[in-house]
Amino acid sequence: MNHPYKCYFEIAGQSEAWQEAVEAVLAQATNVKSFFEEIKPREIIFTGCTSPYYAGKSAALFWQSTLGVCARAVPSSELILFPSTYYSFSHKDPALVVLSRSGLTTETIWAVEEFEKRFPDRTLFIGCAPDSALEKLARVSILLPKAYEDTVPATRSLAAMYLATQMVGAMISGQDEIFNILRNAPSVVERIIRRSESTAQEINDQHVINNIFFLGSGPLYGIALEATLKTLEMTLSNTFNFTFLESRHGPRSLIDDHTLVVGLYSHAGLNYEAQVMSELTQNHHATTVAITPNPQWETGKVSYHIPIDINWPDSILGLSYLPVIHWLAYYRAVANQVNPDTSRNLTPYIEITRM
Amino acid sequence: MNHPYKCYFEIAGQSEAWQEAVEAVLAQATNVKSFFEEIKPREIIFTGCTSPYYAGKSAALFWQSTLGVCARAVPSSELILFPSTYYSFSHKDPALVVLSRSGLTTETIWAVEEFEKRFPDRTLFIGCAPDSALEKLARVSILLPKAYEDTVPATRSLAAMYLATQMVGAMISGQDEIFNILRNAPSVVERIIRRSESTAQEINDQHVINNIFFLGSGPLYGIALEATLKTLEMTLSNTFNFTFLESRHGPRSLIDDHTLVVGLYSHAGLNYEAQVMSELTQNHHATTVAITPNPQWETGKVSYHIPIDINWPDSILGLSYLPVIHWLAYYRAVANQVNPDTSRNLTPYIEITRM
Repeated sequence: MNHPYKCYFEIAGQSEAWQEAVEAVLAQATNVKSFFEEIKPREIIFTGCTSPYYAGKSAALFWQSTLGVCARAVPSSELILFPSTYYSFSHKDPALVVLSRSGLTTETIWAVEEFEKRFPDRTLFIGCAPDSALEKLARVSILLPKAYEDTVPATRSLAAMYLATQMVGAMISGQDEIFNILRNAPSVVERIIRRSESTAQEINDQHVINNIFFLGSGPLYGIALEATLKTLEMTLSNTFNFTFLESRHGPRSLIDDHTLVVGLYSHAGLNYEAQVMSELTQNHHATTVAITPNPQWETGKVSYHIPIDINWPDSILGLSYLPVIHWLAYYRAVANQVNPDTSRNLTPYIEITRM
Repeated sequence: MNHPYKCYFEIAGQSEAWQEAVEAVLAQATNVKSFFEEIKPREIIFTGCTSPYYAGKSAALFWQSTLGVCARAVPSSELILFPSTYYSFSHKDPALVVLSRSGLTTETIWAVEEFEKRFPDRTLFIGCAPDSALEKLARVSILLPKAYEDTVPATRSLAAMYLATQMVGAMISGQDEIFNILRNAPSVVERIIRRSESTAQEINDQHVINNIFFLGSGPLYGIALEATLKTLEMTLSNTFNFTFLESRHGPRSLIDDHTLVVGLYSHAGLNYEAQVMSELTQNHHATTVAITPNPQWETGKVSYHIPIDINWPDSILGLSYLPVIHWLAYYRAVANQVNPDTSRNLTPYIEITRM
C-alpha cells in the first residue's frame, strides 16, 4: 500500500520520539528531583488544552495514587476563567505540570502566568519546542524537539510527552519498577507498531462505520479521551468516549451495527469490561475491538482482539495502547478519504485574543 | 400540536418537582446540618452513574469554592474498580454525596457499600425512590418521589436532584443569597419553561442537523455533559460536549453547516464564549443557540438567543438552563421521529452482575 500522508511515517517511526523522551527525563533527573523536593507540593495540577490535558488526566491518577496528594487535570482555559473554583483550596503548596507541544498555545501560557503570579517558581513544563514562551515561564523544562510532528494532529509527540510525564511521576514517587518499564518502553514500541498495523487496517477496510466509541476506565479514561480527539480530528468521524460501565447508562443507545467500539482493557476492570463488550457485540451487533496487554486475556465476545503482549500495570498501560490507537485513526482516515495530516478547520497550535 | 409522549408533560410540569426538592431540603435541614457539622469532611466525593454523576460534577465546583475543601465527582464504577486511585488521599475525613433516581443502580449501591466500609456513616443520599437500598445505606437521605418520571430519560428528576444538591451546598457553606435564590427557583421555572418552548421547537423544525454540540465552562460543563446524555438518549443524535475554548482545539473539526451548537453562557466566560460562537456561526456556518441569563447579553453572532431573564451566579446558573435543554432534546426527538420516553437499548435503571 502506498502512503501519501506524513502521518503514516510519524506513527511508524515514533520509537525515536519515545527514546528522546526517556533521554530527556534522564538528563533532567537531578533538576526535576530537586524541584519537587524543594517545593514539596501538597497538590498537583496538570494543565494543557485537549490532548495534553487528556494526558494529564491519565497521569494525575497515577501521581495521586503514588504520591498521596490531591492531583487533578484542568483545561488551561478553565483555570483562567474560573480561578476561584480551582484555586480555592490551593493554599496547599501546589505544583503545576504543564504540557504543550508548541509551547505557544495562548490559553496555556496565560494559565501558567496566572499560576506563577500566585505561586512563583512552581511550574514544570513538558513540551516539544525549544525557546518557547512556556519554557521561559517554567522553573524546569523537559523538551522533546524530535517528537514534534509536521502534521496538525499530535500523535508521536503526545505519546512522548505522556511517557515523559509518567517517568517523572515514577521517579519522584520512588516507583522503581514502573520507572524501569518506562525507561525500556522505547525497546518494545517498535514491535507494538509492527504487530498492530495489519489488524487496524483490516478493521477499517472491512466495515461500514457511522460512529466510533472508545471505552476506557481509571487511568485509561484519559487515553480514551485522547483516542477520541485523535480520531475525530484525523478522520472527521463522530467519535465518543465513556468508561466501560458508564456506557451502559444512556450512551449505548447510540451503538448499533454500524458502530466501531474500541475497548481499552485494564487489569482492574477486565471482568466487567468483558461483559460490556460481549453485550455490545452480541446484542448491539457492533464491530468491537479489544486492546489488551496479553493474548491470553478473556476479552468476552469481540470482533477483534489486539493484544500488546506486555506486562505493564494499569497506571501506565495506556502508553502501550497509543500506537494501536494511532493506526486505528490512520486507517479510518484512509477509509473515509480524509487527509489526516491537516484536519479540517484547524491550525498546528491555537491562539485566541485575550480580553 | 399534539403531544403523544409522556416526556412532554414531565418537562412542562416540572415546577412541581422543583418545589418538592425545596421542601425536602428544608424538611431535612437540621439533619443535614448536624451531619456535616459532626463529620467535618475535609474532602467531598460526589458519585452516581452518568446524569447524577454529571450533576455532581457541576455541584463539586460550587461546593469546593465555598467550603474550601477538595471536592470532586467520580462515576460509581470508577470508585469500585480503582479504589487505590481515588481513595489514596482520602484519609482526610471524606463525605460521600450520592445521587440516584431509583436508588437501585448496582454500581452505585456497591460504591456506597465499599465507601461505608472504609468510612462509616459519612454518606448523604439524594434520590427519588423511597425505601431503596441506597436510602438504607446512607446516614441522611433527601427523597423526591414526585420528581420520579414514568419515562426512561431523567429530566425533571435530575433537575430536582441537582437543585436539592446545590441547596445543601449553599446551606452548609452559609451562602444565604444563593440559598434564597434556590429556595425561590420553583417560582421562576414556570416562566422559563413557557418562554423557551417555541424557540426550541423552531430551531429543531427548521434545520437539518447531523450532529449536536453543547458547550459549557466551569460549573456549566457538568450541565453540558447532562445535556449531551439527555439529547443522545432521547433523540439518538450524535451529540458532543466540550468547554467553549477546548472546542477550538480539534473538536471543531466536526462542526459544519449541519451542526447544532448550543452554548451555555457564563458570566465568567462571556467574552470568550461570544468569540467562539461567532466563529462557529460565521466560519463554520453552524446553527448556533446562545442560552444566557439576560436578553441584553452580547452573545456574539449566533442564530438564536434564548435568554432566561434571571440574575443567578454561574455556580447555579445551569439549573435555570435545564428546562431549555429539555425542550431542545424533546423537539429534536420529534424531528428525528424518535420516541423520547423509552430510548433505545435502555431500561429505567441499570443493573450488572457483580463478579
